Amino acid sequence: MNDSYRPADVPDASSPERAPLTLAIVGVGLIGGSFAAALRQASRVTRVLGVGRQPATLQKALDLGLIDAVVDAQTAAAQADLVMLAVPVGAMHDTLRRMAPFLQDHTVLTDAGSTKTTVVQAAREALGSRIGQFVPGHPVAGAESSGPEAARSTLYQGKQVVLTPLPENSAQSLACVTQAWQACGAIVRCMTALEHDQVLGSVSHLPHLLSAVYMAQVSTSSDAALRLDMAGSGFRDFTRIAAGSPEMWRDIFLSNAQALRTELSAVKKLLDDVDGALARGDGPALESLLDVAAQARRAWPLSRKA
Amino acid sequence: MNDSYRPADVPDASSPERAPLTLAIVGVGLIGGSFAAALRQASRVTRVLGVGRQPATLQKALDLGLIDAVVDAQTAAAQADLVMLAVPVGAMHDTLRRMAPFLQDHTVLTDAGSTKTTVVQAAREALGSRIGQFVPGHPVAGAESSGPEAARSTLYQGKQVVLTPLPENSAQSLACVTQAWQACGAIVRCMTALEHDQVLGSVSHLPHLLSAVYMAQVSTSSDAALRLDMAGSGFRDFTRIAAGSPEMWRDIFLSNAQALRTELSAVKKLLDDVDGALARGDGPALESLLDVAAQARRAWPLSRKA
Repeated sequence: MNDSYRPADVPDASSPERAPLTLAIVGVGLIGGSFAAALRQASRVTRVLGVGRQPATLQKALDLGLIDAVVDAQTAAAQADLVMLAVPVGAMHDTLRRMAPFLQDHTVLTDAGSTKTTVVQAAREALGSRIGQFVPGHPVAGAESSGPEAARSTLYQGKQVVLTPLPENSAQSLACVTQAWQACGAIVRCMTALEHDQVLGSVSHLPHLLSAVYMAQVSTSSDAALRLDMAGSGFRDFTRIAAGSPEMWRDIFLSNAQALRTELSAVKKLLDDVDGALARGDGPALESLLDVAAQARRAWPLSRKA
Repeated sequence: MNDSYRPADVPDASSPERAPLTLAIVGVGLIGGSFAAALRQASRVTRVLGVGRQPATLQKALDLGLIDAVVDAQTAAAQADLVMLAVPVGAMHDTLRRMAPFLQDHTVLTDAGSTKTTVVQAAREALGSRIGQFVPGHPVAGAESSGPEAARSTLYQGKQVVLTPLPENSAQSLACVTQAWQACGAIVRCMTALEHDQVLGSVSHLPHLLSAVYMAQVSTSSDAALRLDMAGSGFRDFTRIAAGSPEMWRDIFLSNAQALRTELSAVKKLLDDVDGALARGDGPALESLLDVAAQARRAWPLSRKA
């Protein structure tokens, strides 16, 4: 089982195969574009194909030199050695289904989806017997900007990338994806799809949900204008993530609903406790909780996260 | 009533009286120290007295030139023309009670407490017939650092300061405090204590509560180490405020419990709605809420808040 797969097992990028490689990027935005830029910078790719829905975005990616040609999904499947699916998690199934009949036997596919359990499920349905060619992944990199113009070869330097290998993956497929990410400067870590979704549900999806719900509540209050005018730097940082793409986050929430609800339930329980402490003026209970939070936050290693 | 008091009524700082002024700072940390530094920089004070509980902090403030002398509360009351109370809101009552018998008739007091209703109540009890000399205030300035060594004369440049004048305040007392803050570069705004507490409960206290509760939940989970290791820049910003002083925030929460619980209740209601939408896989409901949040956050004028 993949539970036994540890980062130490990840093949080292220092002895890569340097055969000519055609890379296909499906969805040439910040994430896909930066992957292409980093691999080109590392001389790991000889040709980059771009696939997408929006002609203007693809043209921009061409102009920026992120991709060498615009092709359709079928052509990408037929010509690429490595395929990066940087599309919303809700679009994975359709994308893979369109590519499946045209894939070469040696082609390796990976993705950058923010959730993994439902993506794996979609990939199994769409790829059938070719599922072993798909190595699920997720680069945990901030994305305050978006689009190909935001793409840069350094985006993944020192950032963590999670792979959730499948029992069907060959060592070679896994090594191909691992080495590509390491060539981007990323730190590769393996875990199960379930582990990934629980952890990301907790440290990424739930903060987004809380920030968005809070922002919606403030901005729809009767005196919203005054409130927003008085808000300062704490508010600024707390709500920054609430500005993220509603479509993307809807997809993430839906595809990780179970893990997200589990974490949300634990937080709601604590909020009830705090409400009770406020109601009875229980200073020690409030301070105790604030102290746990402050100590944990102060101990959190900021340096690596900058 | 103070409801009718509008910022336009605030006397202009361009025609200040420049009589020799002795300033007393009770609590010489970031907030009090910066107030002293800014007024000294603006040549508005001739002498600054420092009052506090911790000898080391007072010595540091002396060494930094923030204060000219260390005195006790009684001496400060007897000698100062203007007193700034930069102590935790829970300490206002005791501080004012000790100073009350020694105050001169012309002395004006103000504070920097994060809540105003309970501070006004404490001041009424402690000052009795001298309540007209107390002009309640709150500089809404970020405080990521603390202590006199963090104090700087520019802290309040362009920042908002709320005053919640009392019916008993003379125009002269109000002008004195207003002009002092304007000399610090602050933008002075007047509202009622109740308005202040509702607005700050919403845009300052509730984000802190949500951030702290979330951080406590993550850091006490069984796989906290893995979670914290996988957390990225969204988590970093969302939880930044949770590192704040537990004692200070306990006091703020207790002294603004009613307004805070009202806002918390509204957010909990929305969280229940979102949980329901997650349970039934209701994409449109989730996207609708995320869209309200994203649009409001994107429209928020960041420039002034930097």
